[in-house]
Amino acid sequence: MLILFIVPTSIGFSQTPDLMPLPANYTLTEQKLEINSLFNIEIVGAADTSIYREASRFFQRLSERTGIFFKSWIVTSKNKINTKGLLIKIKSKGEIVLGMDESYQLNVGQEQITIDANETVGAIRALETLLQLITSDEKGYYFKGIIVRDQPRFPWRGLLISQPYHFMPMDVIKRTLDAMAAVKMNVLHFYISDDQGYRIESKVYPRLHQVASEGLYFTHEQVREMIEYAHQRGIRIVPEIDVPGHSTAMIYAYPHLASVDRDYALQDHWGVFDPTLDPTKASTYSFLDSLLTEVASLFPDQYFHIGGDENTGRDWKRNPAIQAFMKENGFKSTLALQNYFNRKIQAILQRNRKIAIGWDEVLMKEVNAKEAKQYFLDGQYNKLIETDVPKDMVIQSWRGIEALLSSAKNGYKSILSKGYYIDLVQPASYHYLTDPIPFRNEVIIPDSEANFDRFESDIIKKIQQGEKLLSAEEEKLILGGEATMWTEHVSAETFDSRVWPRTTAIAERLWSPATIRNVDDMYRRMDVVSVQLESLGLTHIKNRDMMLRRLLGKEDVSSFSNLVQYVEPVQGYRRNRADNFTRFSPYSLMADIAVPDQRAVRILSRQLLDSSLLYDSSQLDNVEALFLRWQYDAGQIKKDAEQIPALYDFIAHAHSLEALSFIGLDAIQKFKLKSAKSKFLNPQRLGKLKEAQKEVGYTELKLVEPIKQFIQLLGLQ
Amino acid sequence: MLILFIVPTSIGFSQTPDLMPLPANYTLTEQKLEINSLFNIEIVGAADTSIYREASRFFQRLSERTGIFFKSWIVTSKNKINTKGLLIKIKSKGEIVLGMDESYQLNVGQEQITIDANETVGAIRALETLLQLITSDEKGYYFKGIIVRDQPRFPWRGLLISQPYHFMPMDVIKRTLDAMAAVKMNVLHFYISDDQGYRIESKVYPRLHQVASEGLYFTHEQVREMIEYAHQRGIRIVPEIDVPGHSTAMIYAYPHLASVDRDYALQDHWGVFDPTLDPTKASTYSFLDSLLTEVASLFPDQYFHIGGDENTGRDWKRNPAIQAFMKENGFKSTLALQNYFNRKIQAILQRNRKIAIGWDEVLMKEVNAKEAKQYFLDGQYNKLIETDVPKDMVIQSWRGIEALLSSAKNGYKSILSKGYYIDLVQPASYHYLTDPIPFRNEVIIPDSEANFDRFESDIIKKIQQGEKLLSAEEEKLILGGEATMWTEHVSAETFDSRVWPRTTAIAERLWSPATIRNVDDMYRRMDVVSVQLESLGLTHIKNRDMMLRRLLGKEDVSSFSNLVQYVEPVQGYRRNRADNFTRFSPYSLMADIAVPDQRAVRILSRQLLDSSLLYDSSQLDNVEALFLRWQYDAGQIKKDAEQIPALYDFIAHAHSLEALSFIGLDAIQKFKLKSAKSKFLNPQRLGKLKEAQKEVGYTELKLVEPIKQFIQLLGLQ
Repeated sequence: MLILFIVPTSIGFSQTPDLMPLPANYTLTEQKLEINSLFNIEIVGAADTSIYREASRFFQRLSERTGIFFKSWIVTSKNKINTKGLLIKIKSKGEIVLGMDESYQLNVGQEQITIDANETVGAIRALETLLQLITSDEKGYYFKGIIVRDQPRFPWRGLLISQPYHFMPMDVIKRTLDAMAAVKMNVLHFYISDDQGYRIESKVYPRLHQVASEGLYFTHEQVREMIEYAHQRGIRIVPEIDVPGHSTAMIYAYPHLASVDRDYALQDHWGVFDPTLDPTKASTYSFLDSLLTEVASLFPDQYFHIGGDENTGRDWKRNPAIQAFMKENGFKSTLALQNYFNRKIQAILQRNRKIAIGWDEVLMKEVNAKEAKQYFLDGQYNKLIETDVPKDMVIQSWRGIEALLSSAKNGYKSILSKGYYIDLVQPASYHYLTDPIPFRNEVIIPDSEANFDRFESDIIKKIQQGEKLLSAEEEKLILGGEATMWTEHVSAETFDSRVWPRTTAIAERLWSPATIRNVDDMYRRMDVVSVQLESLGLTHIKNRDMMLRRLLGKEDVSSFSNLVQYVEPVQGYRRNRADNFTRFSPYSLMADIAVPDQRAVRILSRQLLDSSLLYDSSQLDNVEALFLRWQYDAGQIKKDAEQIPALYDFIAHAHSLEALSFIGLDAIQKFKLKSAKSKFLNPQRLGKLKEAQKEVGYTELKLVEPIKQFIQLLGLQ
Repeated sequence: MLILFIVPTSIGFSQTPDLMPLPANYTLTEQKLEINSLFNIEIVGAADTSIYREASRFFQRLSERTGIFFKSWIVTSKNKINTKGLLIKIKSKGEIVLGMDESYQLNVGQEQITIDANETVGAIRALETLLQLITSDEKGYYFKGIIVRDQPRFPWRGLLISQPYHFMPMDVIKRTLDAMAAVKMNVLHFYISDDQGYRIESKVYPRLHQVASEGLYFTHEQVREMIEYAHQRGIRIVPEIDVPGHSTAMIYAYPHLASVDRDYALQDHWGVFDPTLDPTKASTYSFLDSLLTEVASLFPDQYFHIGGDENTGRDWKRNPAIQAFMKENGFKSTLALQNYFNRKIQAILQRNRKIAIGWDEVLMKEVNAKEAKQYFLDGQYNKLIETDVPKDMVIQSWRGIEALLSSAKNGYKSILSKGYYIDLVQPASYHYLTDPIPFRNEVIIPDSEANFDRFESDIIKKIQQGEKLLSAEEEKLILGGEATMWTEHVSAETFDSRVWPRTTAIAERLWSPATIRNVDDMYRRMDVVSVQLESLGLTHIKNRDMMLRRLLGKEDVSSFSNLVQYVEPVQGYRRNRADNFTRFSPYSLMADIAVPDQRAVRILSRQLLDSSLLYDSSQLDNVEALFLRWQYDAGQIKKDAEQIPALYDFIAHAHSLEALSFIGLDAIQKFKLKSAKSKFLNPQRLGKLKEAQKEVGYTELKLVEPIKQFIQLLGLQ
């Protein structure tokens, strides 16, 4: 059988170098440093030993990318530059802590490359920039000439990984750290405990890992290995033990901690559940004292996350002793009781010389919507928050900018996560345009799924009216942001494709100047970096066909692969709707093979919107061939999937693919015949378009909009 | 640009079920057990806890493969079968040791599946068989009805991984163990020490890992993790510390062990080197006593490999004190001195209650070729071996069947590795037809690169004359075989594609009855299992395009991918020829992206040899379209690779691809015109064919033979 084969159109533009995140300042030069087998690396100054390991890793990656044979990859203090090479100068070791100096200068000249950094970590960042500058022409490989003066906009550029939902093993964590380092992120927020499990070894309370992990946990040794791996890459690891809610696993292992006496089991489903630690008993605090002290000693970072989110309060209301305790102490709400609990926890952390972080519930007061709005309009920000939250507590804002604003206005440091929920599989552009400091009139706030935010629109209005809501000092309290990968709907196989490459957009938002906001250019660079990330072991591209092969049971999956590149998982919390997903669901189906923000859809949209189609017939031939290929693929899918139930959802989309193909081909024919331009979108065709937009198996085929635009471009209606 | 697209022809035949290794006995039935969400697993009897973890892993894999939602994957002793399900009955726990009982019975009936096993490990093997029986039709998924009575032919079915050349990290080891378990292999031979590095932590001699590993080693904790992981899957781990040769790393860390006083450094290159432990000093033995005792206590297996291969003897000859020692003790050869050394090492292992294994040098005497042949012909096998090698030593035969025969004839147990050197990237069929007991007239011994074997042809002659060289008792001394992955020319990225799927053929050779030797059927089943192995995380298929993307720097690599599926790395030791490969070479180039024994070449050969091409014009159209596609791919490659030096080797093959395409198209035209059949292979065309066979970048394009056969099929000369 013969079928037309289409050569994809590539539309290139190149305003900026292929760097991501873009440096704060850079100047491209005409120089270039040619790379040959004599290239070497010399390190001088008071560097930490991690730079030698990172320089060695750099050397290996350089060799693997270019195929150049070097004498050795291993960089030691004995390495000297003889001819061409890289000279790294570091003033002081530095430590991997909040506020470390990540600035660097990088000069690529004709004969030498120099990296100057105040601290080791700056040089580590510079190496990643340099790797992105490898280029080649027919003569060989070279580094592009450039002068870079770079430093991050925010000191906190994080990624949260929740371990209790789906456990991510060591290899996933390590390659994630590699990828984070590649785009200069510096905090791994390591979320340990929730209703579904407790994921690190505890020597003081061993039932936590023995009973409440089902065998899926990291030993102390492995945690140390992970931290060392992260530190070598200039990444901090901040642990979170979420209390007093989200604590079923802890209670399952140690039932005396519970607020309500009932049979507990690890939660299999996703959501918000009632089990809560009893905040009135001394034994709860002595337990947490021992446990948090152990965890605090395992993680050297100065910051420690205590959660504090989504306590339903229901179990506290169910327990008469807790009710009596509240009355006795004058706590009018469960939030006030939680605040009391938080202060005790914070005291434990203080004894361990840790600074507490909490989700925004730990700061925000229970104020009704009307009052809240009035306080906001009047500038009475202190009325919006609890009065006695310790001033050094850091607030992680996840529900909306209300919390971010209130914390800054009241002198609290904060981190933004709202807008960076990558688990909701939204487009990178949305995350990219979400700024950690949205309170300035030059920054556009994109629409988003509002969570609990009660006066976002009022804030936007004020900004649009030119009001500067935060002073420069207040702005400095916003430390940065964190992408959150809540792992309900990912497996170790799909984790990478849910995190990368979209998180590179957040990495740039948090590193590069606020003014760098060109979405098209961001996507262009993201596509380049995405391929580079694969060399770190990331599976975000290569697992697509692997997962198709598993369901099909054979190696050739090209038609399915072609289709699924236009399919995206449904966004937001729509997958939680039916509540049929649990820890034991197969995350190996179409919704898992499809990835968010498909590159192929972006390319197709550009191709079908290109006005040169109107006069360049070869371009139009390409589109025609593509539509013919869709028909072939649809036929192939229907045939191959016929006896394979796990693929039935693909058949539904294949029907749509076929229908859209016919509409597209009809449109081309009409356009070529220059026949009547109206009545093309007749009810039958409109019906097909509507049908093709229907959700199937928690996914959507993203072809209807491009086809509609194409029809419009051709002047058909 | 429009290009013809070709649909690959699939030629199916199905004599045997899709099982690999094929069971010793099986009967297919007409029954089937439908799988739905109520499917459950119940375990009864005196099982080891590992079966619960393996049953849970089975459950998860079943779910991911079928997309069926089960309530839970976790199998505990509380699980009961209500409706349809799997009942596992185990008589006794058993231990993971040589000779464990791996037999099992598996009955898949309409309502229930039963697994009966004497020991836990038998049930673990049965679960892997069952997973290969998943099938589906339009009504849903089911297990095919079958009655299996299965047990392995050999008790030792191993895979050697050498860690010193290229270090394979934990994730590679774990997924390798998963894959081994999937095809019922049961020994990981863990090769620790060589001239290039020492790869596990030593608490007694810490410089071994601190100095001689360059940071690439496993801690004791990690070794234990690995052993536990292996045991859960019914796999033993046998360590090897190779002495007295191959010991540069040990000497580099502890120079007093050396036979010659010189400056030592870790070896970067591959090969056989002189540095050797001094066998005359007491300090050498006290060192080895402490070290081997430590390693022996870390690895619970009863067997311990002490290497003993490729001692050049040169350093012993260079040292006058050693020469004097030899004279004094009447050792006439360095082999005799090594034999003395071996006995002392064996005594250390005996104190640790371990049985020593050595490469065949530890047994074989230095006998000249003529004498050896005479001894062999006269049946004086005892003259071929050293006299005082302890009788419980196990011999690993790597140089030829001479050693295998001699050891069996003299009552030594042995393991065959010659013929299973998968690092030499030979076809699976060669390994498949290599039998651990080649001394029977019904077994065909394939040609191979002879190593040191001095009378292989004589052995073959005797067998062909109908002589039965080994008695049944002697045959029993051959414990099995081991595939060897010497990691000179692999990286963690290419390891899987050099080991899998070819090693499945060796797994079958060692498990299934000797009479199962149909190569075509083996390949058919290997292709099925190959895809299943991917679910275990194996990268043997998916890393091809990933590595291409790295060199190309973009996502679309289809033309390169199409070409490289016809390219194989050069076989044997041809890559060692130029001696320019070291530990620090880029193993990311064409020779690494190409994989051995390409499936696409097999498929193409079948397609171009199919006589239906002669009368079915649509089949011939397919071939024509394929050749056109080759032209397109060649053009694309030449364009894309123009400015990318690491891809230049691809351009050379692209020229050949283009030339072959033209020859193929010409042949079709000639055939269609029914013109003169002679003079097709004129000097120009023959020149092109020859040119296309030339080695490029340590690879060969495997298209010339299929094209020649095609020309012949069409009746052209």
